[in-house]
Amino acid sequence: MAIQIYELCGADETNLFSPHCWKTRMSVAHKGLDHESIATPFTSVATVEGGDSRRVPVIRDGDTVVEESFKIAEYLDEQYPDSPKLLHSGVDKAMTNFIINWSQTQLHPLVARMAIMEIHDALAPADQEFFRTTREKVFGMSLEDFATKMAATPDDLKKALVPLELTLKGQKFIGGDTPHFADYVVFGALQWLRICKGEAVLPQEGAVANWFNSLLDMYDGMGRAAKAA
Amino acid sequence: MAIQIYELCGADETNLFSPHCWKTRMSVAHKGLDHESIATPFTSVATVEGGDSRRVPVIRDGDTVVEESFKIAEYLDEQYPDSPKLLHSGVDKAMTNFIINWSQTQLHPLVARMAIMEIHDALAPADQEFFRTTREKVFGMSLEDFATKMAATPDDLKKALVPLELTLKGQKFIGGDTPHFADYVVFGALQWLRICKGEAVLPQEGAVANWFNSLLDMYDGMGRAAKAA
Repeated sequence: MAIQIYELCGADETNLFSPHCWKTRMSVAHKGLDHESIATPFTSVATVEGGDSRRVPVIRDGDTVVEESFKIAEYLDEQYPDSPKLLHSGVDKAMTNFIINWSQTQLHPLVARMAIMEIHDALAPADQEFFRTTREKVFGMSLEDFATKMAATPDDLKKALVPLELTLKGQKFIGGDTPHFADYVVFGALQWLRICKGEAVLPQEGAVANWFNSLLDMYDGMGRAAKAA
Repeated sequence: MAIQIYELCGADETNLFSPHCWKTRMSVAHKGLDHESIATPFTSVATVEGGDSRRVPVIRDGDTVVEESFKIAEYLDEQYPDSPKLLHSGVDKAMTNFIINWSQTQLHPLVARMAIMEIHDALAPADQEFFRTTREKVFGMSLEDFATKMAATPDDLKKALVPLELTLKGQKFIGGDTPHFADYVVFGALQWLRICKGEAVLPQEGAVANWFNSLLDMYDGMGRAAKAA
């Protein structure tokens, strides 16, 4: 039976853009498992699986419900030990936390600065209101002000990606010869930007571009099948 | 027999400040091995062990000579398999490359911006000349101009360390429960700053401060025994 993944969606329910949900979608595919996406607008997240979760991704695998992409990866490795591992040992799990924190503090804010209005505009009206209220509280300014005053460029992104660019010059994946959960973490951030803002703002050449393209093509092109803005 | 480590030194031969050499010094101690430092001024690096090496650290272990801190860590794990590992598998080795590239592109330039004149001033006259010529070529300006125009603050450092701060809030070391070669990589950068510029510019509280202090205290306080400016 396919694993059900509750994923954030836009006004168009096939627009599944969330970086965190992409981590899980890629994780499930990595394990060779099928998935069924359950499109979940921002304003429905609180009702997922009886309302225990305040965020997605959440998965349901038969009778088991798991929340949060890292915990889901651990669950998948434990439940499906015969398929390729997402996380190998306590050591690379620990180091993955660094990659997660790097991605969320160095890349996610840039995606917001590059695409905040596009993210907003793709949502249904009720979700736009929710998104605006919660984000404006964090930013301390209107989305429109944030978009202009904090605007970031593809060059800013390229600069932030330098540690990854240098790393991928010498190895195929963050995890070495094969993709690791840490690869999907960073992939999620760039896929979010690709879906919301389009491919032109992503690195067009170099090691990160090649790596990202190879991940888009994996699993029968699952990542590439998601429409870029 | 102690492992000999060729390490960069200042005009004072006990001033062993190099971030890369600290990676190796901590690696050797991690393996429970003794070391003997061979103080090596910049202008003598080219003559180390017959002149094959253009940089330090270089180690001599009996008849074996190994250059470069990552390769030295791999050598130590292979040669001394019964003591705690520095690197565990191909996966955490690959992820360590990301940490190295992060440290060298996000922390090392800040150390230079905070302490370039102090690094220079601590060298012997011939090494000062070498250091000035090579660095001014890279910077495209005099050391003095670099120190003023590019000056960075402890707050800049704190900001750059955010991904590490968040990570170490949830785990003792970058490698998890015990230190990993990746911990020594980042330790080296901060120890370099501590020795050249003093302790006051380092984070004074928080997870990174606690982690750095715990590493300074390890191995009979080897790191703390190195005099801070």
